[in-house]
Amino acid sequence: MFLVEGAINVKELLDSDFKIEHLFVTRHFFEENEVILKSSCVDYEYADEKELSEAGTLESNNAALAIVKMKEERPLNANKGEFILVLDEVRDPGNLGTLIRIADWYGISKIICSEQCAERYNPKVISATKGSFIRVDMYYCNLQIYLKELNNAGVKVFGAFLNGDNIHKINFPETGAILLGNEASGINKELEEYVTDKITIPRFGGAESLNVAVASAVILDNVRRRKS
Amino acid sequence: MFLVEGAINVKELLDSDFKIEHLFVTRHFFEENEVILKSSCVDYEYADEKELSEAGTLESNNAALAIVKMKEERPLNANKGEFILVLDEVRDPGNLGTLIRIADWYGISKIICSEQCAERYNPKVISATKGSFIRVDMYYCNLQIYLKELNNAGVKVFGAFLNGDNIHKINFPETGAILLGNEASGINKELEEYVTDKITIPRFGGAESLNVAVASAVILDNVRRRKS
Repeated sequence: MFLVEGAINVKELLDSDFKIEHLFVTRHFFEENEVILKSSCVDYEYADEKELSEAGTLESNNAALAIVKMKEERPLNANKGEFILVLDEVRDPGNLGTLIRIADWYGISKIICSEQCAERYNPKVISATKGSFIRVDMYYCNLQIYLKELNNAGVKVFGAFLNGDNIHKINFPETGAILLGNEASGINKELEEYVTDKITIPRFGGAESLNVAVASAVILDNVRRRKS
Repeated sequence: MFLVEGAINVKELLDSDFKIEHLFVTRHFFEENEVILKSSCVDYEYADEKELSEAGTLESNNAALAIVKMKEERPLNANKGEFILVLDEVRDPGNLGTLIRIADWYGISKIICSEQCAERYNPKVISATKGSFIRVDMYYCNLQIYLKELNNAGVKVFGAFLNGDNIHKINFPETGAILLGNEASGINKELEEYVTDKITIPRFGGAESLNVAVASAVILDNVRRRKS
């Protein structure tokens, strides 16, 4: 089971295929979302703001809290015409949640994580996704094995490095994977050989680096550019 | 006075025109940065990790802590050939710090803030800038007056809205301002009239919005695109 808290996340949850085991809502949330609540056919109980805040992890929660069944994990592939994200050691839950939200904005529905990444059901991850956790599927595995399979299948693996090709000049293909590394240490050395294309976000000023979530948004904006 | 903590921020500080009143360093930081320390001609005292962590706001600090003189604020203009950022009610210190770091990456050296924005010298802001606070100047003022002046000077004001022109199709000029609003409530209604160009980051999936710092990076990447 995992926790889903707050108005945005619970509203999105009600519209998803996740199985809600328990749902607690304030009168206010009920009044604002009566139609969605009733059409979701989920049983709910009333609770007040104090109870929800004490039961959950948010500083304050005046809306809703759900206890939800985790999904069974299944391997995810990069299908033809699809881009996926591959994350190596993104340990910070806030960063992972923000990455899920950004992936969702750019229509990426699959994220592959190394086993050192933050846990997808961590309340801080769920909270930072702002509801996007319902639309982005995740799979945790050994990235060496996973990336090797992508290589064998002929799927391009674009890895973010400081000395790669300028993303403004790249004509991204229809299908591919974006590999992003840990913010402090970058992409692990043993994964470098599976990167088919090193890419770089051009820099115009003095900052040494960008946060990994920010970098993913800029890269995905360039990947999607041709389509818009 | 304000606090600057941690290895990256203090190293950048030593290379800036900020006036350091007190500097405390660990033996380890001294050994790693002896040349920079000596060439900066700043007096320093030794402290251990426990003392630095207790004195400052970081959970742990095994490097350095400085007490620094705030700069006198002076009005900042958008000169010819320059883009500036204008922030309306970015209240979260982490977001503001990340915005400063992103601005620095994209060579933006001036940020104008509404008086409701987080304070530039807040330790959480400084920490999130990862040293970029030394290269980005800031000015807090009434944005209605400031934006009106930009309008009168013929400087374009690009405002991020959900129903504006697709940033992938815009040919950004050499000079301009990007106006970004509070994440929850967007740009204040009374500032809308000063926006000369409404712009939008195209969306390809289901997420409702992007974090304000993430949005600024994507927009600035598009602004700088023509130059790279």
